[in-house]
Amino acid sequence: MNNNFVEAYRNATYKLDGHGTYQVKILKDALNTIDSDTKIDFYGTGPMINDFEDKMADLLGKEKAVFFPSGTMAQQIALRMWCDKKKIYRVAYHPLCHLEIYEEDGLKELHHIETVLLGEEDRLFTIHDLKEMNNAISTLLIELPQRGIGGQLPTWQELKEITDYCKVKGIRTHLDGARLWETMPYYEKELKEICQLFDSVYVSFYKGIGGVAGAILAGPESFMEESKIWKRRHGGDLISLYPYIVSAEYYLDKRLDKMSIYYEQARELAQYFNKLNKAYTEPEVPVSNMFHVYFHDHKNKVEETLSNVMEKYSLGITPYLIEVEGGCKFELNIGDNYSEIPKERLNNCFSDLNKEL
Amino acid sequence: MNNNFVEAYRNATYKLDGHGTYQVKILKDALNTIDSDTKIDFYGTGPMINDFEDKMADLLGKEKAVFFPSGTMAQQIALRMWCDKKKIYRVAYHPLCHLEIYEEDGLKELHHIETVLLGEEDRLFTIHDLKEMNNAISTLLIELPQRGIGGQLPTWQELKEITDYCKVKGIRTHLDGARLWETMPYYEKELKEICQLFDSVYVSFYKGIGGVAGAILAGPESFMEESKIWKRRHGGDLISLYPYIVSAEYYLDKRLDKMSIYYEQARELAQYFNKLNKAYTEPEVPVSNMFHVYFHDHKNKVEETLSNVMEKYSLGITPYLIEVEGGCKFELNIGDNYSEIPKERLNNCFSDLNKEL
Repeated sequence: MNNNFVEAYRNATYKLDGHGTYQVKILKDALNTIDSDTKIDFYGTGPMINDFEDKMADLLGKEKAVFFPSGTMAQQIALRMWCDKKKIYRVAYHPLCHLEIYEEDGLKELHHIETVLLGEEDRLFTIHDLKEMNNAISTLLIELPQRGIGGQLPTWQELKEITDYCKVKGIRTHLDGARLWETMPYYEKELKEICQLFDSVYVSFYKGIGGVAGAILAGPESFMEESKIWKRRHGGDLISLYPYIVSAEYYLDKRLDKMSIYYEQARELAQYFNKLNKAYTEPEVPVSNMFHVYFHDHKNKVEETLSNVMEKYSLGITPYLIEVEGGCKFELNIGDNYSEIPKERLNNCFSDLNKEL
Repeated sequence: MNNNFVEAYRNATYKLDGHGTYQVKILKDALNTIDSDTKIDFYGTGPMINDFEDKMADLLGKEKAVFFPSGTMAQQIALRMWCDKKKIYRVAYHPLCHLEIYEEDGLKELHHIETVLLGEEDRLFTIHDLKEMNNAISTLLIELPQRGIGGQLPTWQELKEITDYCKVKGIRTHLDGARLWETMPYYEKELKEICQLFDSVYVSFYKGIGGVAGAILAGPESFMEESKIWKRRHGGDLISLYPYIVSAEYYLDKRLDKMSIYYEQARELAQYFNKLNKAYTEPEVPVSNMFHVYFHDHKNKVEETLSNVMEKYSLGITPYLIEVEGGCKFELNIGDNYSEIPKERLNNCFSDLNKEL
């Protein structure tokens, strides 16, 4: 890692991505909206947690929602419960699913659930992949948008075909909606219309929303009641989860309506990259607030160029690059920061990039 | 449950037990000591979490400490790892162990570990119970103080005998030190002297300390490194744990030196109860900041009496009673609240109790 490169990003006044620096202010701002003598949640009970769960159940159009400290915990539990019901301890998901690559095999090690990787790493899986699968599974997990490939989404029609097929076959569908909010503008659907296609749904509060941490799992009432038992087993039924709940609600209220702005801005910014000589984005036209940026050049070379430009314009582009065949890449998530950048600075920065790359 | 009784406790100006009301102020006070632009922890990394882990490793005299969202998670993981090392998936602990009665069998359901209940519910287990046990176990869990029986403690000599015996037999020892701080005055030992007897140690930050939530697991370096993998598997490796860390450190610094005061006050208060006609405490002379109070009278009758007295003196004694054979009981934990009570009010209150019980 080139330290100048990381520092150039960190020190920049403006940033292409995100909502701002990870600092204690995020929590303080949220807590300042709450009176000091507000009664806090107590092992999953009390208005502090239950009112928010009700609000989320309503927003997602599900019977009941339960707040979890993390999506890792919430999703393993959802899959475990569906497997228990079907007595089939096998689930299918995309090869770049969060459970497969970021969770140290918790699903396998703690729940002894086998996984089927559907489709291929560099594309969405399709209804054909599903129909051709030979394994019996209890549950299909669908991630919307599919982060590992730049936040791609199936068309609404294909999504419906997939979930309809599962219904017919008796396969449960679980939505990994960590970034679900970000799909609304593309689908032109309400959250509950999207969630209606699925038996259970997980959403996150620190990714697109920018809260501190925490997740909601939502589904049928009895299913969600049972999830509380597993939440305790996992060690997630903390005496108090309010720091996460207060910040989840605060930033959800603040940013949910901005998702279409982020979406438009992602489409705009992708064009800037696609006009560069040696760069392109995946997808070419973003379908959410995120996309991946690829460079046809060596990582060290690109780092040097980006360092110079980021320093010159005090505009952070990315703090990291990953080597891939034929070049390097990074992920971009549009948040509040993008609106702050003066247009002229952005134009000049990309014009320099085009010369130097 | 008699609502007047609960309300009488809640509305009382003074309280016999605890550090104060569960409210958002607990977190706000801790956060106010931290600058808004302080960089936060990121998936277990960064000074916000690592500095506190180092401080705790030092305080507990262990090579390494890792912060967990909960003790439920930390302890299951510790036991799992010791079982993996010995290839014996069986552990022994007291019949009222937290893992046995409060965790929905997480240890069995997630880790498939069998348990041996050592001794009996109403007393500490002894070196003789251990020697007479027929089962091969990987680990012995010892809870200090043993909450379920009023916070009792083995003598230092017996504790050493037990842990020495385990060393000879190749049995690992794990300390459930949720309330470990509270044992220092009785043992007249530093934390690290107590922890030295054990292979791994867990401590909590919301019980005696009064923080928001969170736990530390400490032990050998390689063991603790491995625990991070399990922490992620359990869904406990949150992007940010700082709300719990900041409050843990704040209240630890504030209250650790007060443990001998709470201890002396617990011994004083137990005498008040033991002088009543129809009450006694377990243990009779507390060995920590806690004890259980028993009444030789029917729960409804005691609730009525306590309601009247709590209201008259605006002094909260307990918000609940549990029926037991021949009467009822409750648990008392001494914290900051006790010092606030005017002595005359306390004397008058107990003098009334003696007349009315």
